[in-house]
Amino acid sequence: MQAYLPPIEDYRFLLSEVLGFDDAMGELGQETDLDLALAVLEEAGRFCADVLHPINREGDEQGSRIVDGEVRTPPGFAAAYRDFAEGGWTTLSASPDHGGQGLPFILQLWFDEMMSATNLSFGLFPGLTRGACEAIAAHASDDLKAIWLEPLVNGQWTGAMALTESGAGTDLALLKAKAAPKGDGAYAVTGTKIFISSGDHDFGGNIVHLVLARLPDAPPGVKGISLFLVPKFLPDGEGGFTVRNTMSVGALEKKMGIHAQPTCVMNYDEATGWLVGEPHRGLAAMFTMMNAERLMVGIQGLGIAGGAYQQAVAYARERLQGRSADGARGPVSIIEHADVRRMLLQVRAFVEGGRALAGWTALQLDRARSHPDAAERAQADALVALLTPVVKAGFTDFGFESAVQAQQVFGGHGYIREWGMEQFVRDARIAQIYEGTNGVQAMDLVGRKLTLGGGSVVTGFLDRIESDLAAAQAQPDAAHVAQRVQSALQRLREVTVSLHGADIHATGSAAVDYLRMFTLVSMGWMWARMAAAATTGSEQHSAKRAVARFFVDRMLPQVDALATAIAAGSEAITALADDAF
Amino acid sequence: MQAYLPPIEDYRFLLSEVLGFDDAMGELGQETDLDLALAVLEEAGRFCADVLHPINREGDEQGSRIVDGEVRTPPGFAAAYRDFAEGGWTTLSASPDHGGQGLPFILQLWFDEMMSATNLSFGLFPGLTRGACEAIAAHASDDLKAIWLEPLVNGQWTGAMALTESGAGTDLALLKAKAAPKGDGAYAVTGTKIFISSGDHDFGGNIVHLVLARLPDAPPGVKGISLFLVPKFLPDGEGGFTVRNTMSVGALEKKMGIHAQPTCVMNYDEATGWLVGEPHRGLAAMFTMMNAERLMVGIQGLGIAGGAYQQAVAYARERLQGRSADGARGPVSIIEHADVRRMLLQVRAFVEGGRALAGWTALQLDRARSHPDAAERAQADALVALLTPVVKAGFTDFGFESAVQAQQVFGGHGYIREWGMEQFVRDARIAQIYEGTNGVQAMDLVGRKLTLGGGSVVTGFLDRIESDLAAAQAQPDAAHVAQRVQSALQRLREVTVSLHGADIHATGSAAVDYLRMFTLVSMGWMWARMAAAATTGSEQHSAKRAVARFFVDRMLPQVDALATAIAAGSEAITALADDAF
Repeated sequence: MQAYLPPIEDYRFLLSEVLGFDDAMGELGQETDLDLALAVLEEAGRFCADVLHPINREGDEQGSRIVDGEVRTPPGFAAAYRDFAEGGWTTLSASPDHGGQGLPFILQLWFDEMMSATNLSFGLFPGLTRGACEAIAAHASDDLKAIWLEPLVNGQWTGAMALTESGAGTDLALLKAKAAPKGDGAYAVTGTKIFISSGDHDFGGNIVHLVLARLPDAPPGVKGISLFLVPKFLPDGEGGFTVRNTMSVGALEKKMGIHAQPTCVMNYDEATGWLVGEPHRGLAAMFTMMNAERLMVGIQGLGIAGGAYQQAVAYARERLQGRSADGARGPVSIIEHADVRRMLLQVRAFVEGGRALAGWTALQLDRARSHPDAAERAQADALVALLTPVVKAGFTDFGFESAVQAQQVFGGHGYIREWGMEQFVRDARIAQIYEGTNGVQAMDLVGRKLTLGGGSVVTGFLDRIESDLAAAQAQPDAAHVAQRVQSALQRLREVTVSLHGADIHATGSAAVDYLRMFTLVSMGWMWARMAAAATTGSEQHSAKRAVARFFVDRMLPQVDALATAIAAGSEAITALADDAF
Repeated sequence: MQAYLPPIEDYRFLLSEVLGFDDAMGELGQETDLDLALAVLEEAGRFCADVLHPINREGDEQGSRIVDGEVRTPPGFAAAYRDFAEGGWTTLSASPDHGGQGLPFILQLWFDEMMSATNLSFGLFPGLTRGACEAIAAHASDDLKAIWLEPLVNGQWTGAMALTESGAGTDLALLKAKAAPKGDGAYAVTGTKIFISSGDHDFGGNIVHLVLARLPDAPPGVKGISLFLVPKFLPDGEGGFTVRNTMSVGALEKKMGIHAQPTCVMNYDEATGWLVGEPHRGLAAMFTMMNAERLMVGIQGLGIAGGAYQQAVAYARERLQGRSADGARGPVSIIEHADVRRMLLQVRAFVEGGRALAGWTALQLDRARSHPDAAERAQADALVALLTPVVKAGFTDFGFESAVQAQQVFGGHGYIREWGMEQFVRDARIAQIYEGTNGVQAMDLVGRKLTLGGGSVVTGFLDRIESDLAAAQAQPDAAHVAQRVQSALQRLREVTVSLHGADIHATGSAAVDYLRMFTLVSMGWMWARMAAAATTGSEQHSAKRAVARFFVDRMLPQVDALATAIAAGSEAITALADDAF
């Protein structure tokens, strides 16, 4: 495979010319400026290119295994993780209260993009650890925090989230794991969990599981679920963590992809744990983890698409086949053929549009966390809530489709493992499923997020798009782009209104199509902003204008079809009897 | 996994109520009637369900391997192939001139659907053998036919097509394999071929490769390629085939899917072979194989979608999660949830629409082969030529998307190998690539097929659709469906006209989108015909009407978006400089 090229120049363009990074940081009183941000991204990109990318292909072939009841990760993973922790990368966006550097979330998100582009299986280790840290920081007692938080933040230890059971996935009301008080403030946690990413490994250090289970007096359903901190190694009373807890890896899931990632079946056999947060309030604590995770998962789709794009472009330049359009030259690089260009442009239009939208959303998250004004914080928080399912599901759907397109550029070679393109496809597929399937995300958008603030949050967001489009229309080169996005926005507004107060059949029938419309319009908004900012004759600006045009001319028309499908209503979906399927 | 249920009742509906099978056969003077056809399909379905389905999952896990230089197929494959041949299944649609049963092609195609639904890796063995038989029957000398044809038709031996080289895939002009005359009428063939399906196996019997290579005096490019018959075992002069030819398996390709299928790198080292057809005319002979193969490959997409659908429906019935729409019951089968129904309906609408269109196309192929009137034969032949890229690319794109949707119904379990859903996805992916990538198919449709008969072939086809839609509108229940398809047909006509005489940038930019429009409208035509035929209150007829409505309401609107994208022209695709990608 080709070397990975971190997209630093695109980050620079977005931060300085589109997203107004320095002003945004100034408003938050943050010291991070453009130069520092780019320096961090460059260094992070180097780590991804030099350390993570080279071990990715072999990681897929070898996979994680179980040796003597413990997980053995593929060659190079343990060393890479130690490098990662020693380089301070685990602390990047963590709060200084717990040993973090407190850098803006946008840097974390784009670092995650590069990790996903080069080694998704690896990226899940620090990703889940961050989720665990956030849940502990937000909900655990000070005593628990004092013991468990700092080694997780500084990368000595890692975290895992143990939610799913074989009969309880999307519907956690059905979960059965139990926790009984031991009398000393601790609990004995018992149950079997499946699909536990990073459940065990050979990186050294402790592994801190956050486990959902029911207390003896728990009410049934989701209101009877509590969250427990259950570590692989317990304190030995002498300052060490050497006492093996009664938990074990039952098996590794045999998966379609992310083979290097040890996805565990975990057995907890009266394992010692401590309650995190209030009894029966585990779901709320769990959602603290899940929301940040969902943005990260969306970025996984984006990252893989970007990584696959680079490989496909390199191949399309090198591969000679067929003749030039005028028939005069041959064989020519297949990048000259219109259909190959179309495939590459589809991937690129998503990657760059998605990257911009992810950056904008990340800056809102920074505002939500640290803007001095409470009203601004609340507004930003609501926008992040609105966009979280869009980023999670929209980006992972486009990410998977992009990986498939990039693979197609390779023809038969794309199907052969050594080229690495089919691994992108297999790895990308999981992101549409985990952390809440994309169907569940779409229901979240339509069922919960559209009604935030009585509908004012979504309306405010769409108004903001409209006003940016009006500004972009003033730029001659961006006018075409902005006009197309404006038409699509109008369709989105109409459908949004039509879903207001609709019954559950109607919202359920519309949800996935609606989320895709929303994603396309939101990316179109970013393309209009990028086109408006790309005013010079530089290669970068010329390319931005060309890809913006491709996006609105060739991809955005999907919005009309989706709106038409939704307008047809739910009857076509409810008509067939259950037993006639 | 659930048992496989052959779709016999749908075949019955199509043959007797939609496609007018008995009349069609009568017109061709064929003796096969509905009862015989269904008896054959039932028996074939039983073979797929009882023999091929049970070995498919393990075949994926074990894969084919090389042992002592020869291929070892996974457990059960060799025995299944002997059963298959002894059952007479290799002879089904083959000409009685060479020991075949001469049954209509539609039965072969639907048998292939069921084989693909249950075991795509297996289905490639007889599929490629049929292709080899057709090329030999059409182009080889009588001497060659006398020796090689019958054991291939009766399943004693198998065939393989050796076209691709590492530097020559889509563009065969670049191929380098050589053939030198040995003076005794035979040739010494030398070269390395890649991606050779069924290149070797352990089923017993001979393996007959059809190899593209250049003669010493060959002109450059595609006009200098000849076709050679190169068997694994040569005649020993005593009536046996025991002399090992100088050809060998260099390696097995490590692939994304179809692991049980031995896809070989083949080395020919002055291997003895015989010229098939005229010198330098190998490409024409090769296309005899490729055209029938391409219809078969389209059916692979359909078959996998149908197999995946059955599994997803069974899972959606059994899996309990969430509450009923009114909130009163829970947990309920997830088949009650609108978004799950949407996913299932998308798959089903393709499977049944595609099955009907495949059946119609197969009947045209039967007309092309055996109608008593030459003009009718020519017309049918042109229709098959028009629809071949549509079936190959359209069905394999929808097939892959359908496998992904069916996998999504399983949530996290869909990503785990043992459930078999991710194998459907990995296996389905190859069909978009081999036998000419789907991009190449789309260029074939736009570049060659639209101009057949000066454009009269496509116009005649679209007129035929229009007249069937007019008839369907007379049926009250079918009127809505027919009207929607009529609108889509109008868009397709407009785009078809716009592509007439367009330059290669425009056709290349439009091709893939145009092929998808064509596929959707053609399937819509079949849905209108099915809806018009489904006039009773039977469960089957009610379901047909419901799925027809889903197709036109929720899937057909894509046609508008595709037309809009094409109308935007090629500028968005040509604008970006090659080195700015």
